[in-house]
Amino acid sequence: MILGMDQVVDFIHINRDRYVEELKQYLAIPSVSALPQHKADVRRCAEWTADELRRIGLQNVKLIDTPGNPVVYGDWLCASDAPTLLFYGHYDVQPVDPLDQWISPPFEATVRDGEIYARGAADDKGQVFMHIKAIEAYLKQTGGLPLNIKLLIEGEEEVGSTHLDEFVRTHKAKLATDVVVVSDSPMFDRGVPSICYGLRGLTYFQIDVRGSKTDLHSGSFGGALANPAFILARVLAQMKDRGGRVKIPGFYDDVRPLSEAERAEWKKLPFNETRYRKELGAPRLFGETGYSTLERVWARPTFEVNGLLSGFTGDGAKTVLPATAMAKVSMRLVPDQNPDTIAELFETYLKKICPKSVELTITRMHGGNPWMTEFDNQYVRAAGRAIERGFGQVPVFNREGGSIPVVSTFQQELGVPSVLFGIGLPDENAHAPNENLDLGNFHNGIVASSYLYREIASLTETA
Amino acid sequence: MILGMDQVVDFIHINRDRYVEELKQYLAIPSVSALPQHKADVRRCAEWTADELRRIGLQNVKLIDTPGNPVVYGDWLCASDAPTLLFYGHYDVQPVDPLDQWISPPFEATVRDGEIYARGAADDKGQVFMHIKAIEAYLKQTGGLPLNIKLLIEGEEEVGSTHLDEFVRTHKAKLATDVVVVSDSPMFDRGVPSICYGLRGLTYFQIDVRGSKTDLHSGSFGGALANPAFILARVLAQMKDRGGRVKIPGFYDDVRPLSEAERAEWKKLPFNETRYRKELGAPRLFGETGYSTLERVWARPTFEVNGLLSGFTGDGAKTVLPATAMAKVSMRLVPDQNPDTIAELFETYLKKICPKSVELTITRMHGGNPWMTEFDNQYVRAAGRAIERGFGQVPVFNREGGSIPVVSTFQQELGVPSVLFGIGLPDENAHAPNENLDLGNFHNGIVASSYLYREIASLTETA
Repeated sequence: MILGMDQVVDFIHINRDRYVEELKQYLAIPSVSALPQHKADVRRCAEWTADELRRIGLQNVKLIDTPGNPVVYGDWLCASDAPTLLFYGHYDVQPVDPLDQWISPPFEATVRDGEIYARGAADDKGQVFMHIKAIEAYLKQTGGLPLNIKLLIEGEEEVGSTHLDEFVRTHKAKLATDVVVVSDSPMFDRGVPSICYGLRGLTYFQIDVRGSKTDLHSGSFGGALANPAFILARVLAQMKDRGGRVKIPGFYDDVRPLSEAERAEWKKLPFNETRYRKELGAPRLFGETGYSTLERVWARPTFEVNGLLSGFTGDGAKTVLPATAMAKVSMRLVPDQNPDTIAELFETYLKKICPKSVELTITRMHGGNPWMTEFDNQYVRAAGRAIERGFGQVPVFNREGGSIPVVSTFQQELGVPSVLFGIGLPDENAHAPNENLDLGNFHNGIVASSYLYREIASLTETA
Repeated sequence: MILGMDQVVDFIHINRDRYVEELKQYLAIPSVSALPQHKADVRRCAEWTADELRRIGLQNVKLIDTPGNPVVYGDWLCASDAPTLLFYGHYDVQPVDPLDQWISPPFEATVRDGEIYARGAADDKGQVFMHIKAIEAYLKQTGGLPLNIKLLIEGEEEVGSTHLDEFVRTHKAKLATDVVVVSDSPMFDRGVPSICYGLRGLTYFQIDVRGSKTDLHSGSFGGALANPAFILARVLAQMKDRGGRVKIPGFYDDVRPLSEAERAEWKKLPFNETRYRKELGAPRLFGETGYSTLERVWARPTFEVNGLLSGFTGDGAKTVLPATAMAKVSMRLVPDQNPDTIAELFETYLKKICPKSVELTITRMHGGNPWMTEFDNQYVRAAGRAIERGFGQVPVFNREGGSIPVVSTFQQELGVPSVLFGIGLPDENAHAPNENLDLGNFHNGIVASSYLYREIASLTETA
């Protein structure tokens, strides 16, 4: 055991019940960033977070205003010659609709069968609090930390981190670090702790197609002019072939091939396709020919239709020839695809295949870079050892199909790697009713976090 | 001039202004059948219609209750040995939304530049009133009518004539006639009076496609299972080829080819493609290869998408992989296609092309037969002569792209032909704000209607 860690871990074990009670207080604040009526609650939650950082002994704690919700900042920079870790998390939460599907009230945290149920339990207050408690234990028991730490806890993650890129750009010096740790993602599966080393990127569009000035009677005019809903269907159908491969010319040019080593690693993962399919309620799994399900989601780009709207959508039948049709579409990207390059390729192709019988409008909504760190990066390996200490199990190394754009921002603006050190579970309903967090994972995560600081500190000590 | 017609036509000319004032009263009753809050207005309008029929001298006038709104019935059956004409029209009107686009209030009829503006002016109170005034003139001036006449004026045309088929079936004896006259359609163009001798039929469906139990995150799951919105787009795209031809196997088997004679007649019609395109605000006209615009709309079947709905359709971007996608689709049919046969062909094809990675549900909504009468039917020719008398112009003979299912019902249940004797104009906003009726056409239509009775009466006199 690393020097001093036994007292830290003992303290964490002894305080197990207190942590749950304190977490309940944190979860009681309805810091819903998407809803204006919770504006004051969001600020109250930022203040609660800051007070807690002060209480455990962090320094320079403050709320830093942005054009939106404040960022909570705090640090402890007394470990001279040791490396610096920047922790990123968020104190805001998703809305709770539909409220009637919650078994217990979303802002009265309730423990059932070893899970704590409340909005924000997994995403992300529980994971933020895990680090706060690990730091507290360390400071309390050893009088210091083995490395320098900075905490950046934002209040707009659930509304797209609107002001965070700008915040990072204008606070580069304040945020300077050796590594970023993000705890805002699930582990691979229950009982299978993991370190995530790759995320997909994104480019998102709205497509509007117009065929006439106004909606027309489909009897009086049907046959005389193009139907924009049909044209939209036809151009969307031309985006992928029957094997699930995207047909946009050049789309795959920059895709980094999946190495045989990586494919071999993923084949070893305890992934049950039948259970996965049943949980999703899908008649069949389907994806790009030549790849497994995990490969399709983690390492291959996609084209998805996210929304469709045209003409009459109510009950019954209305014989309208719609004037317009709209689709929301997005592409998930993998290294080394660039969102801007892909956006250009998509727009060029769409303009080419869309007939002149309709007016086409393409709106580029937003994008984000794919991200991947080296599999055997020293920080990733340090995090792996910390997880092993906390969970008693060697973690698996996985990628994620989703996007966390801020990870790319840290890479670009601060020039440092990130470690995705998440202890949620895939079925903890992060954006749905009955969000919950496994208290065993929460507790093991506090232990693992305290080891993480120690492991990262050791890197430079031995480097 | 036919015996007695000069007094009838003189009376019509003299009373021109009174007709407009009376029509304004009729148009003041907001008989909106689609809106429950107008239930009492709808009944009041039925009573107003019945009172008017009694006032002009019709007999057996009554409201006949249906499970919905009452039918107004009246007759005059004193012309022994003369033929019988059944007139069909409706006293209910469309809703007025969006109200703020009306230049004058929809239920305060206002005359501007020779047009009377109000909801129901063209569709259909103005055209019903045209017949009422023609009958009044005839009875007043000659003490009788040259033929037997029955009026069936319904109150649910704008909500799909829900109870009319059943009404016709259960009142076959009461409605027995030699010919049906329907005045509820536009003429070919301003200054181009017409007789419509063909209508398209219809078969309408809702298609629902499900890919998973719930909406999923398009990052975490995109690539692993079929996207129902994409699948829906792909199956819709397979319904028509690039030349606008429907790809459902067997779809064209029963289509009666357009005769060279009919094509030649239509080529002579004063139809301006550029003006038509500009009025619709379409970038280009587009339709089935090998046919003109009029041929495409009047004599060729179509496949149209009437509505699309899936996933996220609000402002902004939401990275959802939708659980479901829905389309409303319909096919316009021409003689001798049968809606049930086509529905079977469509369902078989759709099931065949839809992949097993989604659950497909097909809902058959409603259908109607196409209808076409003989071009040189004696009643059509009689109507042509009446139009010539009223409008001073030989009418053109046209078909319509839309459907009036009740015309097929009369054919099937009463075994008699219908004559579509419409005096609206294509640009009179029948279902839109600022509905209007040209008062010149209204006046000429009253004269033409009085001649119509005389012309049909003469058929048997000379037969």
